[in-house]
Amino acid sequence: MSQRAIQAITSAQVVAGYRTYLELVAGILRPDQERIGTAMMQEVERCREALHQAARGRSVALVCGGDPGVYAMAGLIFELARARGCEVPIEIIPGISAVNACAALLGAPLMHDFATISLSDLLTPWNVIEKRLRHAAEADFVIALYNPASRKRRMQLGRARDIVMEYRPPETPAGIVTSAYRKDQAILLTTLDSLTGHGRHVNMQSTVIIGNSRTFTWNGLMVTPRGYGDKYRLS
Amino acid sequence: MSQRAIQAITSAQVVAGYRTYLELVAGILRPDQERIGTAMMQEVERCREALHQAARGRSVALVCGGDPGVYAMAGLIFELARARGCEVPIEIIPGISAVNACAALLGAPLMHDFATISLSDLLTPWNVIEKRLRHAAEADFVIALYNPASRKRRMQLGRARDIVMEYRPPETPAGIVTSAYRKDQAILLTTLDSLTGHGRHVNMQSTVIIGNSRTFTWNGLMVTPRGYGDKYRLS
Repeated sequence: MSQRAIQAITSAQVVAGYRTYLELVAGILRPDQERIGTAMMQEVERCREALHQAARGRSVALVCGGDPGVYAMAGLIFELARARGCEVPIEIIPGISAVNACAALLGAPLMHDFATISLSDLLTPWNVIEKRLRHAAEADFVIALYNPASRKRRMQLGRARDIVMEYRPPETPAGIVTSAYRKDQAILLTTLDSLTGHGRHVNMQSTVIIGNSRTFTWNGLMVTPRGYGDKYRLS
Repeated sequence: MSQRAIQAITSAQVVAGYRTYLELVAGILRPDQERIGTAMMQEVERCREALHQAARGRSVALVCGGDPGVYAMAGLIFELARARGCEVPIEIIPGISAVNACAALLGAPLMHDFATISLSDLLTPWNVIEKRLRHAAEADFVIALYNPASRKRRMQLGRARDIVMEYRPPETPAGIVTSAYRKDQAILLTTLDSLTGHGRHVNMQSTVIIGNSRTFTWNGLMVTPRGYGDKYRLS
């Protein structure tokens, strides 16, 4: 967590967030700070309540996992503020997104151009997701998959693998990281064609990274070269 | 900066990095820590020296801007270690990449699938970059451009704009952030067709974000909806 995030959370009068994230910051909260914890899938209620408290003149920290600007609460807060004509000052404090945390644990898979795609079709039509998978694969982007599976969504990762395999060899390195930097952390280095053989390890806390055509593995790590080796002698 | 990064830097015997980044962390360094500062474009020498010191048994912190795993030093360190048969333990500490920092200052432009593309053709052939721009634009990714220009590279941003304009309207929101969270910070909200009218503000410290087909501006901010408004009533 960044110093700026810690400062914002510890100085707020109200701290709101999905319960799991409130538990993760419980160690830095004070007893006099009001907590608004909601269940998953209650994002709209959570943001509405945070704005409501802020409009009453209270300082509110809305806590997300990773970076609030990547598949998290930053956009929804602005959308709600706009819809409600709410004029409270809002600051987004950037964080370390799952793709960056997972990449660090896998080695250096993101060293060249990459695309992030959420496989959740709750808010996005599946045909839009498929189109993005296809274009990202064809243009040789490293591909990071957010929300690869949940208890109810089990087919999406296999379908994504099949699409990318139309453009990349089955042995392309791929990594699955679950609960990065948390106590249940799990890191798995595998290949594109074997991505779906690890179903029970893939859940809402997982991020999947598929290498580009030049990604290699070394010492149990996944590395995408930037291109220095083409220009300089690296030994 | 994350707590983990601060801890690694302050506990190292040797701190290496591009001079500008060493200056940014000067405030937390101790006089007894050896500093290895190199000029820009000397990445290979910098990483080689960091590995050399580590192989001598010293603890070394190699400092980058943003996230070391995104267009920075993480990959090069592994490539060099592999080429030299160097067995020292290496930990990558993730950071807040430019795309996340710039997005936070612009509002919430990354709330849906995005692609990062470096416009530097020093290590990547320009035709590869063009292909990625075209596919990212056609698949309606939010597009983040790293290294949009340098003193010598002035044409790339205009060419990128022209390619994206084949797929998106000229009034698509776009943002330019330079030196995010540093003393020279500059934030500019503009449109896709006007991206090239700000040449003197765009340099190696800049990141450009181009919205997708649904990105809107509100109160001087740039917001990409995740899709909540299609499913829930947001007022």
